[in-house]
Amino acid sequence: MPEKPPFSKVVAGLPPTVPFVPPEELERKTGTRLQLRLGANESTFGMSPHAREAMAQAAAESNFYGDAHCYPLRQELARLYGVDGDHLVFASGIDELLGLIARAFLNPGDGVTTSLGGYPTFNYHVEGFGGIIHEVPYQKGKNDLEGLSETAVKTGSRIVYLANPDNPTGTWYSAEELADFRASLPADCLLVLDEAYIEFAPKSADLPIDPSDRGIIRTRTFSKVYGMAGARIGYALTHPEIARAFDKIRNHFGVNHIAQAGALAALQDSDFVQKVVASVEQGRREYEELAQSLGFTAYPSATNFVAIDVGSEERAVSLREALWERGVFVRTPGAPPLNRCLRVTVGTPEERTQFAAILRETVQALSKS
Amino acid sequence: MPEKPPFSKVVAGLPPTVPFVPPEELERKTGTRLQLRLGANESTFGMSPHAREAMAQAAAESNFYGDAHCYPLRQELARLYGVDGDHLVFASGIDELLGLIARAFLNPGDGVTTSLGGYPTFNYHVEGFGGIIHEVPYQKGKNDLEGLSETAVKTGSRIVYLANPDNPTGTWYSAEELADFRASLPADCLLVLDEAYIEFAPKSADLPIDPSDRGIIRTRTFSKVYGMAGARIGYALTHPEIARAFDKIRNHFGVNHIAQAGALAALQDSDFVQKVVASVEQGRREYEELAQSLGFTAYPSATNFVAIDVGSEERAVSLREALWERGVFVRTPGAPPLNRCLRVTVGTPEERTQFAAILRETVQALSKS
Repeated sequence: MPEKPPFSKVVAGLPPTVPFVPPEELERKTGTRLQLRLGANESTFGMSPHAREAMAQAAAESNFYGDAHCYPLRQELARLYGVDGDHLVFASGIDELLGLIARAFLNPGDGVTTSLGGYPTFNYHVEGFGGIIHEVPYQKGKNDLEGLSETAVKTGSRIVYLANPDNPTGTWYSAEELADFRASLPADCLLVLDEAYIEFAPKSADLPIDPSDRGIIRTRTFSKVYGMAGARIGYALTHPEIARAFDKIRNHFGVNHIAQAGALAALQDSDFVQKVVASVEQGRREYEELAQSLGFTAYPSATNFVAIDVGSEERAVSLREALWERGVFVRTPGAPPLNRCLRVTVGTPEERTQFAAILRETVQALSKS
Repeated sequence: MPEKPPFSKVVAGLPPTVPFVPPEELERKTGTRLQLRLGANESTFGMSPHAREAMAQAAAESNFYGDAHCYPLRQELARLYGVDGDHLVFASGIDELLGLIARAFLNPGDGVTTSLGGYPTFNYHVEGFGGIIHEVPYQKGKNDLEGLSETAVKTGSRIVYLANPDNPTGTWYSAEELADFRASLPADCLLVLDEAYIEFAPKSADLPIDPSDRGIIRTRTFSKVYGMAGARIGYALTHPEIARAFDKIRNHFGVNHIAQAGALAALQDSDFVQKVVASVEQGRREYEELAQSLGFTAYPSATNFVAIDVGSEERAVSLREALWERGVFVRTPGAPPLNRCLRVTVGTPEERTQFAAILRETVQALSKS
């Protein structure tokens, strides 16, 4: 009679931490309905009407499994990037891809290098497969490329993770700087370049694609500028040899039919994307001015969010909690020096106005208490 | 400069095989558009209109991430099963759950026991985590419970997989037989009871839930009777200690918002489910009569498909290929003795009539050639 089958060694040793608490759980815990959801860098601009229509139609046909190869979407992205379709890997968002990457490249005990306070879901998956994380502090508000490279060499890391533009700072590097960084890494070390926010960044931050490169995986998503976070679809651009390895381990029918249809339609509506990008650019300027007017400093950002340094971790946490009480969901990065920041998604013009008023009021209320 | 980072030991050793070729790939290869899609046990009855409506609405809001806890759906299922919500684990279908199970319970080299010719995606994930598969042949057309149990003991297996009702045969065991089987397994061996088709089965095949049981994971899905295969949502019923372990490794925001909304709505429409179950029951009888009239034997089935034994593997493959050429998608199980079968999904009454005509014509054409 089965009583208590033991977990695998790696899983038995894992802590119970999760990368992010969902805002719905905040609502359930506090009993407050969030009125401004600006903590997860979702696009409050919504999605292209074409995507919405395609998804509603696809939902009605979703008694059938989606295409395990995401073929029409694959063909379209391959055309856009000027590569063959076998350079692409699809998954339920970048988060799932990061898990596949950790699994494909790490043996238990292998090291990876990432920034201290970088994207926690990467660390979550590395630990989840028994990897060891080497963390390099941010320098002058940016990922420390030299430090990352040195640490990768010194520790014999199998993977270096870099987000460009970065999360949670919003900062970015140019294609030239990325190419130099790329060249500085060891021969047997994979570069994971997480480009979730690349569509918001200047063209100069977009590393040209080298289809012959076997040492890089670039991850992109429909969750941010395309406004499809809840639909769950992202992809990796990489060498076909690496893509074939993922085919040996991925959940083949895992990308839902509705998201596939929505993503394909979203790609056709570049006008919509341009409008979102333009409004977000304007919103970043507004957040910077807001920060300045309150005596805070905003990190320069090429994303759909702004990290506002409020001077101390204590103040950042107090402000976050006070904002939550007022129905405003924002997040604070977990590691120094970024833990002095509120990370705020750039919402629609109306949401920005609301947020500015509530933040001003909250800062004032806290300074009195 | 990264050149060719090596894959993990387990992944480097994997074969390039995949569990299933999607029907879309068949269409692309043959240039024939499928007219009857009866090979993947999708529900051609579609989904409840309530679910469809909920999904269309949820699609429009899916610029926001779905709830990482699937909270409203979790509450509703917990209520239906009379358990606390922490007995449930949600994922993008049972396939993803099987991957999580292999990962949570297997160290490389650990053994599992399953039926020879059973669900290939379980084997895919076991191999994907370095597990060793011990296979027990079907006996008299059914899973060999005694053989499975003996092999689990003999090999020190960490997991035994059993589908009830079974795929690909459609056969089933009663709750009493399952309880005896459960009791015969070693104390440190997990029982995975895959119940993807349980809603089509007689009540007597549904093992009562024991919330204190730490040695079983039951997997269920919205892909079959609820007609939501392309939406991607399934769940596990298990002990909270096991559910908590999955929380340490699962893709927390991986279940899309649209599927969550659709599943919740689908649960409210039991009339729809009953109608599908009744029509499928009628359809199974029709397939059995069809098989008999052609001199073949149908396996008894408590699912939405029927395995038709056509006498030899050669004939099964010829028929499958000939049916594909005529735009009818069916599958043939890969291992003896089931490789003598065509596995055919029970479609709508119209589809059944079409299928009967095409199968008769195909059998006739092949017998002449």
